[in-house]
Amino acid sequence: MLLVIDLIGVFVFALSGATAAVRQRLDFFGVLVVSFATASAGGILRDLLIGAVPPATIADWRYLAAALLAGTVTFYWHRAIERLRNPVRVFDAAGLGLFAVAGTQKALAAGLTPVMAAVLGMLTGIGGGIVRDLLLSRVPLVFRPETEIYALAALAGSIVVVVGHWLAWQPMPTAVAGAVLCFALRLLAMWFNWRLPSAQRGGT
Amino acid sequence: MLLVIDLIGVFVFALSGATAAVRQRLDFFGVLVVSFATASAGGILRDLLIGAVPPATIADWRYLAAALLAGTVTFYWHRAIERLRNPVRVFDAAGLGLFAVAGTQKALAAGLTPVMAAVLGMLTGIGGGIVRDLLLSRVPLVFRPETEIYALAALAGSIVVVVGHWLAWQPMPTAVAGAVLCFALRLLAMWFNWRLPSAQRGGT
Amino acid sequence: MLLVIDLIGVFVFALSGATAAVRQRLDFFGVLVVSFATASAGGILRDLLIGAVPPATIADWRYLAAALLAGTVTFYWHRAIERLRNPVRVFDAAGLGLFAVAGTQKALAAGLTPVMAAVLGMLTGIGGGIVRDLLLSRVPLVFRPETEIYALAALAGSIVVVVGHWLAWQPMPTAVAGAVLCFALRLLAMWFNWRLPSAQRGGT
Repeated sequence: MLLVIDLIGVFVFALSGATAAVRQRLDFFGVLVVSFATASAGGILRDLLIGAVPPATIADWRYLAAALLAGTVTFYWHRAIERLRNPVRVFDAAGLGLFAVAGTQKALAAGLTPVMAAVLGMLTGIGGGIVRDLLLSRVPLVFRPETEIYALAALAGSIVVVVGHWLAWQPMPTAVAGAVLCFALRLLAMWFNWRLPSAQRGGT
Repeated sequence: MLLVIDLIGVFVFALSGATAAVRQRLDFFGVLVVSFATASAGGILRDLLIGAVPPATIADWRYLAAALLAGTVTFYWHRAIERLRNPVRVFDAAGLGLFAVAGTQKALAAGLTPVMAAVLGMLTGIGGGIVRDLLLSRVPLVFRPETEIYALAALAGSIVVVVGHWLAWQPMPTAVAGAVLCFALRLLAMWFNWRLPSAQRGGT
Repeated sequence: MLLVIDLIGVFVFALSGATAAVRQRLDFFGVLVVSFATASAGGILRDLLIGAVPPATIADWRYLAAALLAGTVTFYWHRAIERLRNPVRVFDAAGLGLFAVAGTQKALAAGLTPVMAAVLGMLTGIGGGIVRDLLLSRVPLVFRPETEIYALAALAGSIVVVVGHWLAWQPMPTAVAGAVLCFALRLLAMWFNWRLPSAQRGGT
């Protein structure tokens, strides 16, 4: 069950990477690599930082298979995927929540302090998108002021897990609550165009 | 003997990094860093992912020396190197084959599954070029549709090693066969302009 | 005492990242992430390469706090920070020296060869700035010919530590000497516009 959820997250993140790669007219192989990198970079970075090698996404071929499937589908039917943009963004929000929560749990299990576990959980959620944008040579979307609340939603989900861990709540309901909070925040942000200020307005 | 082949691969990859850096008019130090990064990034990434730290290229100063030599030579005689572009590309194809094969063997020895060992072997071959292009702030050449078959050649060589490992062939002839296949594929691709489709044509 | 110096280095490097991020009009969160990445990337990369996981900057929340403080201050008062550009560059030179020296010592303690320890020490000093520029999608400043001597100053400081280690000098005075040398070189380079040649002039 958990694996299925994880694979759906990988698939959806890979879709977002593949869509961006197709728009930049990368070749077929480039689309596949960017798909896999987008889906796995956050988790790989987290696993490297906590010393869990080889990272799960490298050790288990099913993650690779899910990412390559998403890349291939996007490459051949990208117009259909573009038309589905809203469903894809909803799935992406779900993936963000799942990755942030799972990343936080793994960081806590590795003995990190609560604050850094929440940071690493957030990083697991947003890291893939950052690497996708680096590979496409552009400033990561997640940093740009035109993007609705994204990293903050991941951080909120991670904080729920950390607080639950601290108060010794049961792991499963805590994880569900964190993922749902992240998912809901991201959907609301897209719906109501919630954005963070950029420094131009915020500066003095 | 193996070390000599490895150092030649490092030298040639460093040449490709240094040439690109000189074209962008980096300063002397920038050329040296890009040379070393191009020559070592694939192997370092692989070693981090399989937990082999410190990576071989960091532990042994001769890799650094070979990369710095290539960078210095390119910096002072880059017009001569440019004129030698075809020989350099042939050496680069040889380096690609050697790195892909050696990377796959190392990943198999670290206990990775065959599929992921082939992926990591390919990554060892192409990773340096990706980091080179990231440092120069451009979309990696290996992903772009105008580049002839490159990563696929590395993957073909890696697959030979994995299949040979699975069928318990002797390691040495298998490695030679993999490296030669990668080398030949890359040369043929350059000769006949074999390219992968980009999504614009492939899309529906 | 050492921690205080380290935190000052983190704070100053985070200031340089935040200033660059604000100029590119990143949103508040983007500024914070670039601040933390600039302050910690060099040390994280070094710790990954020598196998010291989780890296110190991840394990201890105070580094994060110092970086976030610098990012927040820069976000709200960036015009004041811009006016302070010269003091900030002086602090940055001090941070460079401290990071290079501390990085070299850590690499030596991990058993690296002297040459590679000096390289890793330099990387600890300059790595943050490289990651900052990658996240902002531009060629790293440290590689560009218009930047005054920077990496070379870090390398000089690292070499002092390595030579002192080799000759069995006392660690503390050696470290101070290395940091002061790096700091002085960088200040002199800014003052007198010392630059490395780019290949255009140097080529034949």
